[in-house]
Amino acid sequence: MGEFDLIRRYFQRSGGTDNPAVALGIGDDCALLQPAPGTQLAISCDMLVEGRHFFADVDPEALGHKALAVNLSDLAASGARPLACTLALALPQANEAWLAAFARGLFALADAHGCTLMGGDTTRGPLNLCLTVFGEVPTGQALLRSGGRPGDELWVSGTLGDARLALEALQGRRTLSPELLHAARQRLERPSPRVSLGLALRGIASAAMDLSDGLAGDLGHLLQASGCGARLEASVLAGLPAVAAGVLDETERLALVLGGGDDYELLFSAPAARHAEVQAIGHAVGVPLTRIGQLETEPGLRVVDAQGRPLSTPARSFDHFA
Amino acid sequence: MGEFDLIRRYFQRSGGTDNPAVALGIGDDCALLQPAPGTQLAISCDMLVEGRHFFADVDPEALGHKALAVNLSDLAASGARPLACTLALALPQANEAWLAAFARGLFALADAHGCTLMGGDTTRGPLNLCLTVFGEVPTGQALLRSGGRPGDELWVSGTLGDARLALEALQGRRTLSPELLHAARQRLERPSPRVSLGLALRGIASAAMDLSDGLAGDLGHLLQASGCGARLEASVLAGLPAVAAGVLDETERLALVLGGGDDYELLFSAPAARHAEVQAIGHAVGVPLTRIGQLETEPGLRVVDAQGRPLSTPARSFDHFA
Repeated sequence: MGEFDLIRRYFQRSGGTDNPAVALGIGDDCALLQPAPGTQLAISCDMLVEGRHFFADVDPEALGHKALAVNLSDLAASGARPLACTLALALPQANEAWLAAFARGLFALADAHGCTLMGGDTTRGPLNLCLTVFGEVPTGQALLRSGGRPGDELWVSGTLGDARLALEALQGRRTLSPELLHAARQRLERPSPRVSLGLALRGIASAAMDLSDGLAGDLGHLLQASGCGARLEASVLAGLPAVAAGVLDETERLALVLGGGDDYELLFSAPAARHAEVQAIGHAVGVPLTRIGQLETEPGLRVVDAQGRPLSTPARSFDHFA
Repeated sequence: MGEFDLIRRYFQRSGGTDNPAVALGIGDDCALLQPAPGTQLAISCDMLVEGRHFFADVDPEALGHKALAVNLSDLAASGARPLACTLALALPQANEAWLAAFARGLFALADAHGCTLMGGDTTRGPLNLCLTVFGEVPTGQALLRSGGRPGDELWVSGTLGDARLALEALQGRRTLSPELLHAARQRLERPSPRVSLGLALRGIASAAMDLSDGLAGDLGHLLQASGCGARLEASVLAGLPAVAAGVLDETERLALVLGGGDDYELLFSAPAARHAEVQAIGHAVGVPLTRIGQLETEPGLRVVDAQGRPLSTPARSFDHFA
């Protein structure tokens, strides 16, 4: 199978696209995208490398899902509606079963979000996936990391820490029952990008970002961009893992949440006066939202116990080069 | 040096951007791009892998140039004006001298074309570069592969085949004098994307594409998209290499041109009635343009000698998976 056959067979769908934003898809030197008037294009790109972002024996269908999910999660964090994506793929060989499963996982999630695969590149090389996603957001309405203000409440979506729990179990560093391992792996391998939530938070959240490297480090970026500090409640954080709730004590759960990674949930701030609106949005989009603390004038991140006393937080964020 | 330091030090320029299309650059979950009203966004993405697209010991400054050049060449082929790009980079380690030189090469070319690096990703892994470029083109005016019609003249820009000559010399399959090797390497490692030419050809070229895998195979894609065939003149093709002109016979030069690759010149068709306009454009943008043949109704590609007799053409195009 040649390069162009591979693209045609697995990634180029017949019948073109019914996505009005995609004026030209796969097959020319460039694809052509036409966002609606009055919008800006939100763009994010993530590269996934075997042995670093996924195991060599990962289910390729799950990998196709995740490669797109982590990118859609960035669009969600910006409050952008997904339009399209490009995929660049380096493969050690053209394994047809692998490609078919990978494409199935990718397209299932893409279709669920109206995100058209409009172009890309394929080459031979150590397995590497680079997805770039394009979304549209009304001009000036994108959610940024920089809009948080002291007094704003801090919220997270969904559950945190279980993806890291799965990683540690798969690495042999923890033992989980088959049922719990399965549940935790779903969180690691099948994250749900919070696209509807991001759209609903436009005009309400003061700052937002997605959680990919662990809450402590990611929040640090939001605090730096917003020029403020934060206080988080340890007991609330420890309640965020779902799978880990049954097997780890509070200190361990806190470490998973703060230093974990691969959560692909949204972290956002909103004025306290909009607390009820935020809660209503969570109900409307069907995603649990938890108030984990608040922004403060004093720089830095403080995790406090039920009595308001600061805990030492050893957790640090994931860094590919540290 | 951590991941975020690496981005800040080598890829994030202080003072933001004076590119009005880039509403938000590096540092948030998404970058924000705002093409001008009445335009479409042309998007292309290329992945470059060590050992496949470049040698492990390549000059990193040249690599930075080439990684962007091959993408800008796709924008040129579409008649799009470069706006911005994203860079995803997998690195075995964070080598500061390498990164500084790579960034220097990338930014020199980016600045020459007003192309702002607006986002990306960095991770550890086998060396892999994935660039995605964004350009704008007035709605409906993009140059496509599909617009060629029988009777149109076929043109190429610049010289062809010398990049392949350099590759064969570097692989030890040919011997060149130091002067000729240097000249050929410039064509392999420092291609000049024909952006001005692509812009000037809007409304004149009926079809266009860039040459990256060798004329025979690339032209095959244009013919398939345009639904016609072509006749090329062997003596004209053999005159296209510059460096190889002094060292190879006509048959060898023909093979280099038809099956070479890495040329990053434009191949385009235009109605014969616009011959003089095409010539004037070549003079205006300072790029030699050569009429190599014409499109015909009969499917397939024919290379003919001075008497119009078809030659057998063994050359085939490069394919990463064939």
